[in-house]
Amino acid sequence: MEVMQVLHMNGGMGESSYANNSLLQRKVLLTTKPIMEAAVTALFSTAAATFPASLAIADLGCSSGPNTLFAVSEIINIMSNLCKATKQELPEIQVFLNDLPGNDFNTIFSSFLPRFQEKLSEQMKSKNGAWATLSCFFNGVPGSFYGRLFPRESLRLIHSSYSLHWLSQVPRGLEGNKGNIYMSRSSPPSVLRAYYEQFQRDFSTFLECRGQELVVGGLMLLTLQGRRSDDSSSKECCYIWELLAIALNEMVSEQGLIEEEKVDSFNVPMYTPSPKEVRGEVQKQGSFSIDCLEVSEVNWSVLDTNFNPNVVLEDGGYNMAKCMRAVAEPLLIEHFGEEIIDEVFKRYRAQLVDAMSKEKTAFVNIIILLKKIT
Amino acid sequence: MEVMQVLHMNGGMGESSYANNSLLQRKVLLTTKPIMEAAVTALFSTAAATFPASLAIADLGCSSGPNTLFAVSEIINIMSNLCKATKQELPEIQVFLNDLPGNDFNTIFSSFLPRFQEKLSEQMKSKNGAWATLSCFFNGVPGSFYGRLFPRESLRLIHSSYSLHWLSQVPRGLEGNKGNIYMSRSSPPSVLRAYYEQFQRDFSTFLECRGQELVVGGLMLLTLQGRRSDDSSSKECCYIWELLAIALNEMVSEQGLIEEEKVDSFNVPMYTPSPKEVRGEVQKQGSFSIDCLEVSEVNWSVLDTNFNPNVVLEDGGYNMAKCMRAVAEPLLIEHFGEEIIDEVFKRYRAQLVDAMSKEKTAFVNIIILLKKIT
Repeated sequence: MEVMQVLHMNGGMGESSYANNSLLQRKVLLTTKPIMEAAVTALFSTAAATFPASLAIADLGCSSGPNTLFAVSEIINIMSNLCKATKQELPEIQVFLNDLPGNDFNTIFSSFLPRFQEKLSEQMKSKNGAWATLSCFFNGVPGSFYGRLFPRESLRLIHSSYSLHWLSQVPRGLEGNKGNIYMSRSSPPSVLRAYYEQFQRDFSTFLECRGQELVVGGLMLLTLQGRRSDDSSSKECCYIWELLAIALNEMVSEQGLIEEEKVDSFNVPMYTPSPKEVRGEVQKQGSFSIDCLEVSEVNWSVLDTNFNPNVVLEDGGYNMAKCMRAVAEPLLIEHFGEEIIDEVFKRYRAQLVDAMSKEKTAFVNIIILLKKIT
Repeated sequence: MEVMQVLHMNGGMGESSYANNSLLQRKVLLTTKPIMEAAVTALFSTAAATFPASLAIADLGCSSGPNTLFAVSEIINIMSNLCKATKQELPEIQVFLNDLPGNDFNTIFSSFLPRFQEKLSEQMKSKNGAWATLSCFFNGVPGSFYGRLFPRESLRLIHSSYSLHWLSQVPRGLEGNKGNIYMSRSSPPSVLRAYYEQFQRDFSTFLECRGQELVVGGLMLLTLQGRRSDDSSSKECCYIWELLAIALNEMVSEQGLIEEEKVDSFNVPMYTPSPKEVRGEVQKQGSFSIDCLEVSEVNWSVLDTNFNPNVVLEDGGYNMAKCMRAVAEPLLIEHFGEEIIDEVFKRYRAQLVDAMSKEKTAFVNIIILLKKIT
């Protein structure tokens, strides 16, 4: 089975783990809000004279959960305020929600979307004037963003949050990565190279496709997990997986619950690039200028804050384990089967609690705003 | 619950009844093939000089089954042949598959679409030249076609088959329709008027919306169940429901399995217009010229032909009952509950067998090709 498909088979993912994962994602989305606001404003001000009657935007890797329409909601809100302030009529907005074909589009269409549209319509009713007549048309787009998804020059704004660090496949040539499940300080150079080259292939393909799909002057705002360091095996991006590897290796050595070979052949299909690497690929590909490139951090302990009072939070390690479970469980089940899962996450949680009590732990996020130039 | 939603809750619909229903639908689609071919050819020849790099088409009421991509497949095939013949490059095609939010888009995206794309890609590989580089982008569009679904002037071709005879709701004012479940020779004039007025409201809304969404010169091919006669209670369109009403009324009088009041308050939310009525609404609305208006028939006994040798067919009444079950069961369950269903369809089948042995029985279909003129 293709790796990217597995990422959507969130079989055993409990609702509470989902809530924690979405809490993290929402935190990340809020981080990018000021850049989003600047981007949409730029879009409106540069195109004002020839602004079209309709405008298409896409969210790539939209998933199916409480955050699916969060970014779109922000974009519409910013546009609506801008139009109100400048007394312009809002263009008709065509929204494309993309994710892999295995994503639960039925739930988006029959549950999240009707609620969202109702709320939107109420908001618009409460405003006066021409901008109150918002027309917003929603579409589901099944497919991998490592291929073309839209016609040439059909989009004006692309957004993607926390999806692009996933590779299209596990890199080839990771045989030397014994005992590890991602890049690590003990990974041989060949493994680091294999990961980097897969990232280069995938990210350049992504840029190539989006370059064809965006109109000239169109914008693309991407947020992905990354690192500050030039070293791809740096702790800041690898530690979270090293702790899971420890849990898996314990189960090999202490209980024989997992075969050693199984752990050796398991590798996570993601890549956490540095700002320099991201910039390098953008410049090499050539379709985009970089309007903004920022690095931000979200502490692992973000799940402890009373950010969302409706979610009852316990200790940070516990919530972090639940959050990571939402992400890693489909991959683990695909490779190891379902039996070991509870034990893995019990042990992983202990590792996380220990790590978080000893040191500052955070996800590093790279936020990049690109403008289509040619 | 909204009526149109119920039409997609095909809860107890067995696969075999689905196969029979799709056999009928495919037969109908094949009937319209020559008109479709003429339409696509017209689209290409009139727009040849300024043909865009990409072109958007929509199928409204696509459902989720073996026929979901049939019309789209035909359209692509015709376009591809035309381009090959004239040595033009195929434009990028953006396909919008629309149905109500309760439709099973997940199955379309994860099952029908990948198989279709694979087949399409093989077909294209086997051809040579520029038209081999077909780019086709698929989208799911959840929503009622009795409202806007797409931005202004964004579509070039709209197709809809066997969906538009469904009304947006059961008409109001059917209290006098006792003992009937659709229009019938015994329905009072007020009932016939209520049905007709609901059709007028719905169909004119449909035309108004599509008129905004199609580019000038764009085409719309619609197939819907209808009648030849000017009399809306004519047997040719009402008989199929009269036989179901007989089955239901038997269960009231013989067994008391159904309350009389329940049958009196049950009415099917469809309307089978005459060509004259369809033409009248198009002319009144004003956005379209009529390029073609045809009436065709599909015999109820079509399910007996060896049209598809993979489907084992028994007696015509049996298959017709299964076909109608796929259509009517969700509505019946919503109104009467699940318990009576098997008995209803046993009795309905007997009625159908009897009717089909005595006389020629057929569905009348109206096929209309419209061109956006203003």
